[in-house]
Amino acid sequence: MMTTHVRIVGTGLIGTSLGIVLTRRGYRVSLEDPSPTAVRLARDLRAGDVSGGEDHVRPDIVVVAAPPDVVGQVVVDSLMRWPGAVVTDVASVKAVVLSEVLAAEVDPRRYVGSHPMAGRERSGAAAARADLFEGRAWVIVPHDGSDPDAVSLVRDLATSTGAAVRVMPAAEHDAAVAAVSHVPQLAASIVAATLRELSEPAVGLAGQGLRDITRIAASDPRLWTQILAGNAGAVREVLRDVRERVDDVMTALDTLVDGDGEGALATLAVALEAGNLGHARIPGKHGASPAAYGIVSVVVPDRPGELGRLFREMGDAGINLEDLHLEHGLGQPFGIADISVLPASVEPLRAELTRLGWRIHD
Amino acid sequence: MMTTHVRIVGTGLIGTSLGIVLTRRGYRVSLEDPSPTAVRLARDLRAGDVSGGEDHVRPDIVVVAAPPDVVGQVVVDSLMRWPGAVVTDVASVKAVVLSEVLAAEVDPRRYVGSHPMAGRERSGAAAARADLFEGRAWVIVPHDGSDPDAVSLVRDLATSTGAAVRVMPAAEHDAAVAAVSHVPQLAASIVAATLRELSEPAVGLAGQGLRDITRIAASDPRLWTQILAGNAGAVREVLRDVRERVDDVMTALDTLVDGDGEGALATLAVALEAGNLGHARIPGKHGASPAAYGIVSVVVPDRPGELGRLFREMGDAGINLEDLHLEHGLGQPFGIADISVLPASVEPLRAELTRLGWRIHD
Repeated sequence: MMTTHVRIVGTGLIGTSLGIVLTRRGYRVSLEDPSPTAVRLARDLRAGDVSGGEDHVRPDIVVVAAPPDVVGQVVVDSLMRWPGAVVTDVASVKAVVLSEVLAAEVDPRRYVGSHPMAGRERSGAAAARADLFEGRAWVIVPHDGSDPDAVSLVRDLATSTGAAVRVMPAAEHDAAVAAVSHVPQLAASIVAATLRELSEPAVGLAGQGLRDITRIAASDPRLWTQILAGNAGAVREVLRDVRERVDDVMTALDTLVDGDGEGALATLAVALEAGNLGHARIPGKHGASPAAYGIVSVVVPDRPGELGRLFREMGDAGINLEDLHLEHGLGQPFGIADISVLPASVEPLRAELTRLGWRIHD
Repeated sequence: MMTTHVRIVGTGLIGTSLGIVLTRRGYRVSLEDPSPTAVRLARDLRAGDVSGGEDHVRPDIVVVAAPPDVVGQVVVDSLMRWPGAVVTDVASVKAVVLSEVLAAEVDPRRYVGSHPMAGRERSGAAAARADLFEGRAWVIVPHDGSDPDAVSLVRDLATSTGAAVRVMPAAEHDAAVAAVSHVPQLAASIVAATLRELSEPAVGLAGQGLRDITRIAASDPRLWTQILAGNAGAVREVLRDVRERVDDVMTALDTLVDGDGEGALATLAVALEAGNLGHARIPGKHGASPAAYGIVSVVVPDRPGELGRLFREMGDAGINLEDLHLEHGLGQPFGIADISVLPASVEPLRAELTRLGWRIHD
């Protein structure tokens, strides 16, 4: 079997991480990037070799990992530069890239879009990880004219990284990520933005709920501006739904403050219940329902070694942790560890930890 | 020193939890609730004694832990029933209760509002915990006419539960919780609601970001309807800010989809940057900046005992965990544990875990 040659165009976080994992999996990887510094850093991280920008290399597959706003053009250029190669890209929005390809004078059969749903709050080659894609969704986005062999090649590459491969048309993909990723990003940013002018004592009342809801508000504004702009149509659809719900709630609040309040409570209850129903649809770990595990909550003193001791003692008791959520006290010398275990392990774990002197919640 | 007698009116989650911890701290606690079942359950959980609803008991302090929509009336009733007692309440919204007290024909000097910022996704006495308040903020909300001794008594009670006491006037409190709690709750519910009609493959692309942002969307709609209605004015102020930001983004998206896109990218970038700035104001653990810790990311195979082994080995290496975030793969046989440790422990931990064969990220 011949070694597959992968050309990675763009050595940022995604391109470099991909180069590292594919090199380890036995692919031949060559790299290029408009920034000589970035491409040398990627090479030093063993993401592939740097055979210059020349066109005499003959890759089997080209992965365009350029910033979202230039991806379409680089895909078209790549289809022209390497007439024998399959070309894919890793942009978060797919229809906009596909339309550029179909509009260009190139053979679109060799193009298959893809979207590894992996990212970090840090960017650039220096943040690359060999296992960035492990366990993450990698959506393969063929179009009607994609060659089946080209689709297979991209699928094999994605599978090699440890990602969970899904296949979806571009429009369906873009609508899905608008709802599960792009609008949630906007919501996190917008809620976080309301804290800018808040007084110090007020922001000091922030709890775990606020921390969770705003975590992704720390993401890179330049990257996200490009992603949102590239998916403007689908994001607008979902955001319109959000705005209607905000308007409904505002009307209810107006009625309560300035009017007779008629119907306001029902409107608020409906908005909150809709949230319950939507939340229940989100798959848990491994696609399992969150209710598949039982939770034991333990008070953990904030002293060196206490959390380690807890896990050591759980391990000694032969009980496996499925998940863990730690909540820290506000200026207090302990936290609460919510430990998810298989339902059958709840009672044995409670009994064992109580015996060992841990403080357990109900 | 005399034993302080606390009368708890309302034995749901908060009232029962409070009774349990105060009993343990040496207070004499008596309980009442309109539901005979609820009050008996609270008594059985050792939250206090049940001396009937009679008025011959002479509490030093009455804690009204009734549902938000009746709190004001029950506070007024309590001030009349027990002319010698300080009366407080634990409702999440303060101005509305205070105004009912000031409007009634009662002595308002004995009333001091309070708000323990503790709750769970479950409600009722059965969900009570002795340590529900530990490390949480407990805001004491005196009014201009509150007697200083009454304020001290409420403060002592709050401190006894292990809560971190803050003092704030009612209007300031209500504005603060609108921003750090009530509008975030609405945002979580509204984002989650957009998932209701999503296709199965689309909702299957949900990742950790979506899970974090929608976690509190599972909260009790009835309780939250009352909270939002009680703080309608302050919630409306913050939500108006949210709506303006949503409108700005919608206008930018409209320009991108239907117009020439002029100025749209700048609008999106400004919205995302505002989120960065607001997010940076949220205090981390113990009020420390999140940057005060270093993070080591470890791949944890999803086999029984692996996570336990990781912590055991960290403990053996003498390294204390400050925080932990677990991210599960999507249908993959492992997760990523992001372990926060003191900066000086980052390199020793990486070295030790690598030596033991763990896979570490960058």
